[in-house]
Amino acid sequence: MCPNQNADSSPPTRDQMVPVDMNGSTSVNSTHTNGVNGVNGTNGTNGVNGVNGNGYNPPQQRRNPYAPRASDFLSNVSNFKIIESTLREGEQFANAFFDTKTKIAIAKALDAFGVEYIELTSPAASEQSRTDCEAICKLGLKAKILTHIRCHMDDARIAVETGVDGVDVVIGTSSFLREFSHGKDMAYITKTAIEVITFVKSKGIEVRFSSEDSFRSDLVDLLSIYQTVDKIGVNRVGIADTVGCANPRQVYDLVRTLRGVVGCDIEIHLHNDTGMAIANAYTALEAGATHIDTSVLGIGERVGITPLGGLVACLYAANPEYVKSKYNLPMLREIENLVAEAVEVNVPFMNPITGYCAFTHKAGIHAKAILNNPSTYEILKPEDFGLTRYVSIGHRLTGWNAVKSRVEQLGLNLNDDEIKDATAKIKELADVRTQSMDDVDSLLRVYHSGIQSGQLAVGQKEALDRLLRKHRESVSNGEGDAVSA
Amino acid sequence: MCPNQNADSSPPTRDQMVPVDMNGSTSVNSTHTNGVNGVNGTNGTNGVNGVNGNGYNPPQQRRNPYAPRASDFLSNVSNFKIIESTLREGEQFANAFFDTKTKIAIAKALDAFGVEYIELTSPAASEQSRTDCEAICKLGLKAKILTHIRCHMDDARIAVETGVDGVDVVIGTSSFLREFSHGKDMAYITKTAIEVITFVKSKGIEVRFSSEDSFRSDLVDLLSIYQTVDKIGVNRVGIADTVGCANPRQVYDLVRTLRGVVGCDIEIHLHNDTGMAIANAYTALEAGATHIDTSVLGIGERVGITPLGGLVACLYAANPEYVKSKYNLPMLREIENLVAEAVEVNVPFMNPITGYCAFTHKAGIHAKAILNNPSTYEILKPEDFGLTRYVSIGHRLTGWNAVKSRVEQLGLNLNDDEIKDATAKIKELADVRTQSMDDVDSLLRVYHSGIQSGQLAVGQKEALDRLLRKHRESVSNGEGDAVSA
Repeated sequence: MCPNQNADSSPPTRDQMVPVDMNGSTSVNSTHTNGVNGVNGTNGTNGVNGVNGNGYNPPQQRRNPYAPRASDFLSNVSNFKIIESTLREGEQFANAFFDTKTKIAIAKALDAFGVEYIELTSPAASEQSRTDCEAICKLGLKAKILTHIRCHMDDARIAVETGVDGVDVVIGTSSFLREFSHGKDMAYITKTAIEVITFVKSKGIEVRFSSEDSFRSDLVDLLSIYQTVDKIGVNRVGIADTVGCANPRQVYDLVRTLRGVVGCDIEIHLHNDTGMAIANAYTALEAGATHIDTSVLGIGERVGITPLGGLVACLYAANPEYVKSKYNLPMLREIENLVAEAVEVNVPFMNPITGYCAFTHKAGIHAKAILNNPSTYEILKPEDFGLTRYVSIGHRLTGWNAVKSRVEQLGLNLNDDEIKDATAKIKELADVRTQSMDDVDSLLRVYHSGIQSGQLAVGQKEALDRLLRKHRESVSNGEGDAVSA
Repeated sequence: MCPNQNADSSPPTRDQMVPVDMNGSTSVNSTHTNGVNGVNGTNGTNGVNGVNGNGYNPPQQRRNPYAPRASDFLSNVSNFKIIESTLREGEQFANAFFDTKTKIAIAKALDAFGVEYIELTSPAASEQSRTDCEAICKLGLKAKILTHIRCHMDDARIAVETGVDGVDVVIGTSSFLREFSHGKDMAYITKTAIEVITFVKSKGIEVRFSSEDSFRSDLVDLLSIYQTVDKIGVNRVGIADTVGCANPRQVYDLVRTLRGVVGCDIEIHLHNDTGMAIANAYTALEAGATHIDTSVLGIGERVGITPLGGLVACLYAANPEYVKSKYNLPMLREIENLVAEAVEVNVPFMNPITGYCAFTHKAGIHAKAILNNPSTYEILKPEDFGLTRYVSIGHRLTGWNAVKSRVEQLGLNLNDDEIKDATAKIKELADVRTQSMDDVDSLLRVYHSGIQSGQLAVGQKEALDRLLRKHRESVSNGEGDAVSA
């Protein structure tokens, strides 16, 4: 047996790859569930429908006849690290003011979640920033602690004294920033970068060199400086879409090109001004990036950067077992709430994973299929995040299959024609106002009781209206739910 | 002169392309501001720094030596239509219940904004849905009105009687949906599709055929049915990422492949479960899609679809003049507020464009550069959306250049050393708690007054503390802002 093989990582044989029968539904033939484009939907969702419970399982992904493209050997979608920057980029969010206690609470929560790196504000920013940096370094977290400084010896000297595991160095390289920010040319930038990197390395800690506004920098300038710092032994080079102008194909091209130029790791930092920061991060990994910068809820300058939760959502969709093996996913909601409270915002209603309706299904055809097999309309399993699914049925878009499922949950005995008849009444009422689950349950119980007592038959609209009126009167007379009694 | 040329679309000569001097800053040489990868940052932001005021100006983009890739002839990034589905997909959002009056208000607002199509819930869903559909068709809007139905003759017969300009037909084609939803095979789906399309076409209105869960459907099945419906004259075929599992490169490949198979228009509908719906839409346009589905704030099933505002942000970043010529951008915030109120949610704090801090700049180096030239850190011009920029300075990440700008705005007379000294005091105070603009202004006025009166010099910390204490006492004694008096 190969010494690298063990129970968790050895490729399963074909015989082991048995589709799992979920929720009593028929098992899915994996050949039929492959997606288009030589990219597969089955592996993308294998936690949901086809996984065999052996934990992280990359070989299955490679085996799939539809899956690998020739170029996908570059992809690090199942081999990446997160540099969590809530305590650096996040501090640049308009609302953010983190006192020492809050910083420590956030750092501990991120460490417990499992992020590989935690990045802190430069100790040169203020005296409190410096002492907080030292305090967090002393916590003994599993995550490596980084601080983020300008490419300047003054800042570097302060940074290396704080006890950090590494220093992230940044300087603007676009003509915009060279002209309107620091005013330095590429020769000066290169000279300073070499000096700072050599100094940080001499202290035996990690060092990253990043350009700023990389997508509006000259490609030759960029590659030239990255090649130079790679040669002197920088641990990582960083690409930064500081202004949020990049799109996925640009990101793919730049990272792939850079991958051919440097041997060190590649980090990417993506602002979200046009809402593409999650997709850009995913695409960067496909092109060979190794480290992604995130912040909780994406907080940062302007509308911030790649959010931790969104990044986890898309990487989980690509390889749920790998992501589950790395991170404590049920903690995500807690961390988001912690940070939301600290910066006095609400978690956005449509946040990936934790948005309050992320696992709510409403339209009739969706509800029907979800009840048959959740993977029909879900690529994320709510239970993996400590969350639950909800099927909404008291509205005008409802369908009789969804209502049937509720009838069965309530233990009522109605046939399909009767359920369709009751559904028509729910739609009619919901056309006036949305019906709560209580409203729907009462109606179904009244309908059932009418059928059982012979006071109602399919299609007798007036009889049903009479029974519902009588029920409402008895409830408002304080007799409680007469029907269910 | 070529008959296709006119004042708005004719290519400007090189002489016309004069960089504009913004905000008194030095003009930018466009060669230096080209981005990496043959994709240009200048055109991406030409509303900000390099546009010559002639309105929509695609030839400048084509001229740029870095800009066009060989494959970009497919791109419809500057040639697309929006199908706005707040009144269809949006009605599937858990919180949504739109009465007739609200539907009409939303339809009118979207029409005034300039969307090309408005899609409505199927008239087969409920009686009110049907009468509302008829009412909106009678409004006489510029936007075309569509309704969205299951691929079924019963629904089609109801739809064509409502007065809509077109019918969007959908059926599940993935093995998941074929097995767990409608239970039909591809032969049945194809036969029904032909029947429904032929019927709708016979009424002289537009018809679109879409698969559902397209990215988990068999590629050959998909292309086969699209080719069939294209041959019988469907107006558009639709791709739907119903479960939100797609990523940008998959989207690019599927749309590009389909573009080679059908001659009709291509629509794409993208769910946002992993936060990639905006980027996927952008990439679909690059691959040749022609129509993008959106909803206001992205509302829809689960976490919804491509949001209208986010799509506008990324397309504006790609070609501001084109997007400004099509849509009434300052209305965006009003429409988002209208819908947010109707479904009882808050606009997310980090929404592209309208998030309350989307144009707030905080870190010292950002603030300094923004004050020199906004395009250093902005690819969206806030004034194009009826919004304003804000530079935040009362925090520990502030820098003296940002403070200097405020000193000048206040009309105070301080030299650079004095401003650096005052900045150190702002950082010290902000390490304890964030300083409001009022706090900063007071401090600067106290500092200025101290310098003028000779009570203070650079570096005299105790003298400054004494003056600030005295100022606070005078304010709390109700003497108002003694310094500014």
